[in-house]
Amino acid sequence: MWFTSDNAGPAAPEVMDALNACNNGYTSGYGAEEGMARVTARIRDIFESPEAAVYLVSTGTAANSIALATYSAPWSSIYCSDDAHVEWDECGAPEFFTGGAKLVTVDAKDGKMKPAALSQILENGTQSDVHQTQRGALTITNATELGAVYTPKEVEALTQIAKAYDLPCHMDGARFANAVVSANCTPAEMTWKSGIDVLSFGGTKNGCAGVEAVVMFDPEKAWEFELRRKRGGHLLSKHRYLSAQMDAYLKDDLWLSLAKSANTAAATLHAGLKSAGKTSVHGHAANMMFFRMKRAEHQRILDAGAHYYLWPHTATLDGDPDEEVTCRIVCNWSTRTDEISAFVQLARG
Amino acid sequence: MWFTSDNAGPAAPEVMDALNACNNGYTSGYGAEEGMARVTARIRDIFESPEAAVYLVSTGTAANSIALATYSAPWSSIYCSDDAHVEWDECGAPEFFTGGAKLVTVDAKDGKMKPAALSQILENGTQSDVHQTQRGALTITNATELGAVYTPKEVEALTQIAKAYDLPCHMDGARFANAVVSANCTPAEMTWKSGIDVLSFGGTKNGCAGVEAVVMFDPEKAWEFELRRKRGGHLLSKHRYLSAQMDAYLKDDLWLSLAKSANTAAATLHAGLKSAGKTSVHGHAANMMFFRMKRAEHQRILDAGAHYYLWPHTATLDGDPDEEVTCRIVCNWSTRTDEISAFVQLARG
Amino acid sequence: MWFTSDNAGPAAPEVMDALNACNNGYTSGYGAEEGMARVTARIRDIFESPEAAVYLVSTGTAANSIALATYSAPWSSIYCSDDAHVEWDECGAPEFFTGGAKLVTVDAKDGKMKPAALSQILENGTQSDVHQTQRGALTITNATELGAVYTPKEVEALTQIAKAYDLPCHMDGARFANAVVSANCTPAEMTWKSGIDVLSFGGTKNGCAGVEAVVMFDPEKAWEFELRRKRGGHLLSKHRYLSAQMDAYLKDDLWLSLAKSANTAAATLHAGLKSAGKTSVHGHAANMMFFRMKRAEHQRILDAGAHYYLWPHTATLDGDPDEEVTCRIVCNWSTRTDEISAFVQLARG
Amino acid sequence: MWFTSDNAGPAAPEVMDALNACNNGYTSGYGAEEGMARVTARIRDIFESPEAAVYLVSTGTAANSIALATYSAPWSSIYCSDDAHVEWDECGAPEFFTGGAKLVTVDAKDGKMKPAALSQILENGTQSDVHQTQRGALTITNATELGAVYTPKEVEALTQIAKAYDLPCHMDGARFANAVVSANCTPAEMTWKSGIDVLSFGGTKNGCAGVEAVVMFDPEKAWEFELRRKRGGHLLSKHRYLSAQMDAYLKDDLWLSLAKSANTAAATLHAGLKSAGKTSVHGHAANMMFFRMKRAEHQRILDAGAHYYLWPHTATLDGDPDEEVTCRIVCNWSTRTDEISAFVQLARG
Repeated sequence: MWFTSDNAGPAAPEVMDALNACNNGYTSGYGAEEGMARVTARIRDIFESPEAAVYLVSTGTAANSIALATYSAPWSSIYCSDDAHVEWDECGAPEFFTGGAKLVTVDAKDGKMKPAALSQILENGTQSDVHQTQRGALTITNATELGAVYTPKEVEALTQIAKAYDLPCHMDGARFANAVVSANCTPAEMTWKSGIDVLSFGGTKNGCAGVEAVVMFDPEKAWEFELRRKRGGHLLSKHRYLSAQMDAYLKDDLWLSLAKSANTAAATLHAGLKSAGKTSVHGHAANMMFFRMKRAEHQRILDAGAHYYLWPHTATLDGDPDEEVTCRIVCNWSTRTDEISAFVQLARG
Repeated sequence: MWFTSDNAGPAAPEVMDALNACNNGYTSGYGAEEGMARVTARIRDIFESPEAAVYLVSTGTAANSIALATYSAPWSSIYCSDDAHVEWDECGAPEFFTGGAKLVTVDAKDGKMKPAALSQILENGTQSDVHQTQRGALTITNATELGAVYTPKEVEALTQIAKAYDLPCHMDGARFANAVVSANCTPAEMTWKSGIDVLSFGGTKNGCAGVEAVVMFDPEKAWEFELRRKRGGHLLSKHRYLSAQMDAYLKDDLWLSLAKSANTAAATLHAGLKSAGKTSVHGHAANMMFFRMKRAEHQRILDAGAHYYLWPHTATLDGDPDEEVTCRIVCNWSTRTDEISAFVQLARG
Repeated sequence: MWFTSDNAGPAAPEVMDALNACNNGYTSGYGAEEGMARVTARIRDIFESPEAAVYLVSTGTAANSIALATYSAPWSSIYCSDDAHVEWDECGAPEFFTGGAKLVTVDAKDGKMKPAALSQILENGTQSDVHQTQRGALTITNATELGAVYTPKEVEALTQIAKAYDLPCHMDGARFANAVVSANCTPAEMTWKSGIDVLSFGGTKNGCAGVEAVVMFDPEKAWEFELRRKRGGHLLSKHRYLSAQMDAYLKDDLWLSLAKSANTAAATLHAGLKSAGKTSVHGHAANMMFFRMKRAEHQRILDAGAHYYLWPHTATLDGDPDEEVTCRIVCNWSTRTDEISAFVQLARG
Repeated sequence: MWFTSDNAGPAAPEVMDALNACNNGYTSGYGAEEGMARVTARIRDIFESPEAAVYLVSTGTAANSIALATYSAPWSSIYCSDDAHVEWDECGAPEFFTGGAKLVTVDAKDGKMKPAALSQILENGTQSDVHQTQRGALTITNATELGAVYTPKEVEALTQIAKAYDLPCHMDGARFANAVVSANCTPAEMTWKSGIDVLSFGGTKNGCAGVEAVVMFDPEKAWEFELRRKRGGHLLSKHRYLSAQMDAYLKDDLWLSLAKSANTAAATLHAGLKSAGKTSVHGHAANMMFFRMKRAEHQRILDAGAHYYLWPHTATLDGDPDEEVTCRIVCNWSTRTDEISAFVQLARG
């Protein structure tokens, strides 16, 4: 009963098989290996984007930060949701990689940025007053940090606002697969067809051991990205161990199958917990959910061996046992039915 | 016959076994997994340094750059050998991570910094004149980029010069195992007993898939390192796949066995090439060697299917076929006897 | 009738006299001139801080940014009021000089940070979770961007909260003189006696041509500041032209006399405008005030030759002429009584 | 007898008059004042460059660093002479402003970069290998740090080599006036007609109190420069005190007259010292010269009240009194004939 995060579980067997298979003799490194050519071809195909530039790194923070640095000047404002990972969970990595850009948080619901709030902030911003940071990139997270999913239409509503100011649009897709499965759309619809210029395409949380792709639909800034990646220490010499993972992840739609498993598990668990009388906070569009319960109940469930976090990170079990606090529960591709049942049973009390 | 680099070969079976074994159920991430505790314990033990702080990253550039940034102010000079990896092969990563420190190259022989040259540069430097960058860290590479190995005594000769100015001392040990095997000393003798404060301890080039440890013998700056690592996008969430590699690498002295294989292969190949009448340039203390041959001969050998690079990277096969140019030949743990024989045979012409 | 800013007026005659007087023969530069020794002595005396380190730069942005960089790590959060100059009017200079620290805005009234809001944010912050930026410096502005003034007691209320987390405390005193005059306290009471560690002590807005002092009450980080100043291009070679200004500014309490003139002018103008039936928004503690009027009225007054800005910068004259918008009116040491009368007359309509 | 530096002397009377004259009533700031429009017009006229973008800052380090940052990527190499001010006397400011570019020193004679050395380094460089910093800007200093002067033809010889790689070319003209006077050419010939893209045009060392212009002959990057200047804390609010100086400096060719005085003084002094039997090291093309004398002689002259520095900064009076060491002697616009005579007299012994 381990629901702390989708990075707490194992890698999928197909991914491990690929890691083992690629450990075979000599090859060029640094992305020049054959496996990477396959990855690029697959991503271009899956995204219907034959010119896309594709790069691999080993963390989501690296993917986001190097992508944002490639698309934002040091003197720019980067617009993100008020609970975005780039703002709260990367220890200032975007600021570091950009050379000091300013993250500006935009009001959001369930982690989804409100178009009106974005409009307002951009109108109030400036691109001609030298005293202020200048309008820079938009970054949105799909699925969001609160488990909601933007539809392609909702993505487009935001990118259109940004495009009116010629701003590049980034999607933090650490849980991109879960979002695509939930929205039942194509990867292209979710990204470049809706105005996204660059995507952090997550593998790690959805069955890989540690690999994220950055997909730039217009390859114009590809070389700059490569230099920033190298300079950030993120170009792996034995790059085959990244490309092998991603290759297996993409093959035969494994990435979608894994996300389906995770989303289905979440739906089942969500229904179970609601039927157990618990209060859901943000729904369950993807593989994550949030429930409010009394501290005493959290204590009981955690004591019984369940693993999850209170949310936000400042919430604690210390305090009035009858006061309700929120917890975050995350399913992943490997979440088993028996774990779900056991957890619901436990929650039932 | 693949001698381009020690990162062109596969990972050792023990390392792959560990990767597979750790892919088992749920665990904490970000270095909080059990495997990392084992790694820390092993490194403290191996280095006879019970307080050492130990961290893992996935590239040597990350290890070096984050270590140097932790020990150098942005306004400092970092002293390195004139063919150091940090100067030539990291696309300015040390400058990026330090916030703009200045790498100052020191005259070297076979990649080994000359103590007199270091003394001279430090004397000419300044720590009281605000107009110049200030004396900062010393970084030396062992084994060097030219395949030579510093003995502990030679390390100490340099660190003593630096310590007279209170400078921290870093060792780029991407090939640390090869150096220790060659110098026939203990890890402690090669590092803190000789004045090294922080070590980039390489795994990738010596049989791992992609993992480097940073070892800080005095843990005082450990928390700063952790923040810099996170902020650099180098804290892996599924960290178990780093710690599993390193754990296997350290267990039962595997790291030393692998380095012995590589060094022995290099010695055999070096002897073979010399017996074939070729001219060695920098000797063969570790797992690397450099030979001068006519361009025509390089052409013939490469055409026959051997893989290696001319050195430095500016050397090319274009030009007078009778002119001699240098090539770099690198062995690794998996270099086979039959490959060595075949290569010598080929060189013989 | 020029009320746009206190940097729109001339320098005081005493300051110009000093500039002329110092243009005399040869002298050491870079702060080693005699005049700088006098400045340091005067500031130590005025602030009752015999060990204080004192440096001069030519802009407030430089003073603030270099001070904050000296007291904040790149991975830290810097807490400022939600209308702070460092957040809105320095084009990201604090982010640039710190190497990417994150400015976190705290709820404020009339530009004065609310203690409860600061407490809340600091409680929610972290200094042990590597995923987030760490608690860093507090910076408050006195007088504030909205013309209010913190009393020493109010300063202390904030610094005590910050000190509970061992955070350094900076005061942006671009209008420090106006604040001290308004609060009727000593410079020491307003700063180190109330917990301020480092002060940007403004001269430019209050009768100098272009000079700001940075005062570090504990000189421990003085050398770091000097290096950051030089590296930022802010160490003037003919430094005498900075020190001469500051010397004259401090002599015989000129700085206080000038601020008194400005504050008195503001009080008179504020009373006049109120008597003319206009609505003041933030009061007039120092030399600045804000009035709400219909767009049509602003238009009329500006057309008649008055100079001031609408506030915030996003407010414009375009729009419903009957809608009220706010303007900012700033007096300075040289504001004349006849200008005030003329302006009030004009406002009366 | 003060020959330490051309920044040790006073500002010219015309410059001080302008400072006094501009201290008159209210004006817009931040470069929007009328005086700045005049400066821009004058510089465009003087340089025969009607589109040039012109900005003012208060130090040469700021001018050089912001200019180089505007024209160089963080991952680039900036090529400078091996005794360049940017390398030795700016405490890493170019590295700071560029975000960590690498300064690469090129062999020089009398401070003038050797074309063959530049060619060689650029050939060995790379613009396709991600592991190395990429070829970036060329920066040359005229007059050089050793007092020599590039002719326009010599400038062009270097810029042509750089342009073959599409590199932007910067001139550090802290002593530009002295160079133009010495080379007897037009400002246009010395700069854009010889391939220079951006110039740091010095005022401070040649009779201003503290002002340097940056001239971008192609205004394409003007806005970026403005943002970098602001973000660097180098946009002065009471900007009139910068533009007034520069306006006076340019009016009626004052800048050239002042430089002529300085150069003539240097020529006279140089001849005098040679006639006194002293050994000149780098000649006297502009306003600086270097002489070798025995330590004992330096001691005697300095004891008698002359002011100058030994060169390089590591040279000291400590050591064998009969050993010769070099000193640097700098004249400026205000150096008087009687000072020259007195100094020659003194040197004669």
